[in-house]
Amino acid sequence: MKVGIIGGTGKMGHLFAGVFERAGHEVRVCGRTTVVTCQELAQECDLVMVSVPIRDTVEVIRRIAPLLSPGQVLCDLTSLKVGPVTAMLESAASVIGFHPMFGPGVPSLRGQTIVATPVRCTTETLHAILSIFECEGAGITISTPEEHDRVMALVQGLTHSVTLLVADTMRRLAMTPEETAPFMSPVYQIEMGLVGRLLSQEPDLYGDILRLNPFVPPILAAYAQSLAELREIVDAGDAGAFSTLFERNAAHFGSYCTRAAAETDFLIRAMVDR
Amino acid sequence: MKVGIIGGTGKMGHLFAGVFERAGHEVRVCGRTTVVTCQELAQECDLVMVSVPIRDTVEVIRRIAPLLSPGQVLCDLTSLKVGPVTAMLESAASVIGFHPMFGPGVPSLRGQTIVATPVRCTTETLHAILSIFECEGAGITISTPEEHDRVMALVQGLTHSVTLLVADTMRRLAMTPEETAPFMSPVYQIEMGLVGRLLSQEPDLYGDILRLNPFVPPILAAYAQSLAELREIVDAGDAGAFSTLFERNAAHFGSYCTRAAAETDFLIRAMVDR
Repeated sequence: MKVGIIGGTGKMGHLFAGVFERAGHEVRVCGRTTVVTCQELAQECDLVMVSVPIRDTVEVIRRIAPLLSPGQVLCDLTSLKVGPVTAMLESAASVIGFHPMFGPGVPSLRGQTIVATPVRCTTETLHAILSIFECEGAGITISTPEEHDRVMALVQGLTHSVTLLVADTMRRLAMTPEETAPFMSPVYQIEMGLVGRLLSQEPDLYGDILRLNPFVPPILAAYAQSLAELREIVDAGDAGAFSTLFERNAAHFGSYCTRAAAETDFLIRAMVDR
Repeated sequence: MKVGIIGGTGKMGHLFAGVFERAGHEVRVCGRTTVVTCQELAQECDLVMVSVPIRDTVEVIRRIAPLLSPGQVLCDLTSLKVGPVTAMLESAASVIGFHPMFGPGVPSLRGQTIVATPVRCTTETLHAILSIFECEGAGITISTPEEHDRVMALVQGLTHSVTLLVADTMRRLAMTPEETAPFMSPVYQIEMGLVGRLLSQEPDLYGDILRLNPFVPPILAAYAQSLAELREIVDAGDAGAFSTLFERNAAHFGSYCTRAAAETDFLIRAMVDR
């Protein structure tokens, strides 16, 4: 199979170029600085993978969609699926949206998750592509574009927001991680590490995930409601209302809590033993 | 030295009873179910350690304070320091507030932090007690009660709140961790683990930390301001404003971000390799 990766000069595209090459496929890449164009790749490759920033994805897809024929496969790698998949369906090709749930810095696909949203594709074609990822140890989650975007608004949208907001609050209060370091519990050390980790990365990816996923604003609205309720309880010093809030959530999380305690015990020990 | 632990029948008191015993001291404990009373311990012990829930601490201290003499040492183990230390100063004893930055489930004090707020105490007395904890591998942070409570409003107050609010938002949206599990990134898996971990514990400790620390409400107010600003940016789809917000915080966190990325890389690998 001849694989063309548009944006294959970027980190994520490069990672997937390696995956296809190790599976024995011929890989061609193009990017902003290459002589070969995305139109050329679209015309000559069996599988065309779009690996460009979210905000450019739909535009790039629109540029190549008219060139594709039913015998080809078109896919993307962004953190959103409804928009890119809708654009890809304007082509005549088979269409699968992918979302690798990891950054390009992973040592391999082993233990990593890739979400696949096949929307127009034979079982054989889907299986052939997924088995390339599975051979390298990735786990596959099959979903619809809508379900993907709805869950991602929580998995990425809410948790990125919360992480960023902790940093923003510390900045407002002029408190630094260095100042709090002597007072760290292992849990706080992990949490502060995740804040610093997010801030060490590119703003645009995070901004695009928040701005372009239509399920994010209602989740942030629900979060604001939760915050308002907690602030009321804290300001009133209402011990009973706090217990009710806490236990309602413990009940919603159910048996997951015990498993989570064991999993994080492991992490905390790894952190302390490091 | 004769050590008396009030609340020594509880988990944290039991942990510290072991620490003092291994250091060769005689330990007596009392609790709600013991024949020996806190007054008896206060009269006969060289060091009296109050290890009861936060909400009961000041009351227990007031009960024993009049019985103590200048040759004795009085200390507590709560997550707040201004209130308990002020109450302890009403006695004639030497006074040190302690806050172990860990739960009673730790295998040992090795690698753990204990914050000490010595407010009326000779260097010799302080050193003698701290060396018992240091011998077991604990790290000591010396602070004032005010500084401790101000930093804890962030280290515990804000981060516990945020963790609880993620759960509360999921409950509002009827989303479960199980439903999101197939879509987990390693970072989300860690974050969700910390949510479940918190919910697996006793509500009262968390409620008391939030309700009884006067520095918590202004921190939650600052957090609400940050959230309002982020929601405005997301609702407006303003990519430039998001980048500004992100980069302002990356600048505030400075070189910590790079260190945090390396530290969390280690954790993520430990999680994936598990």
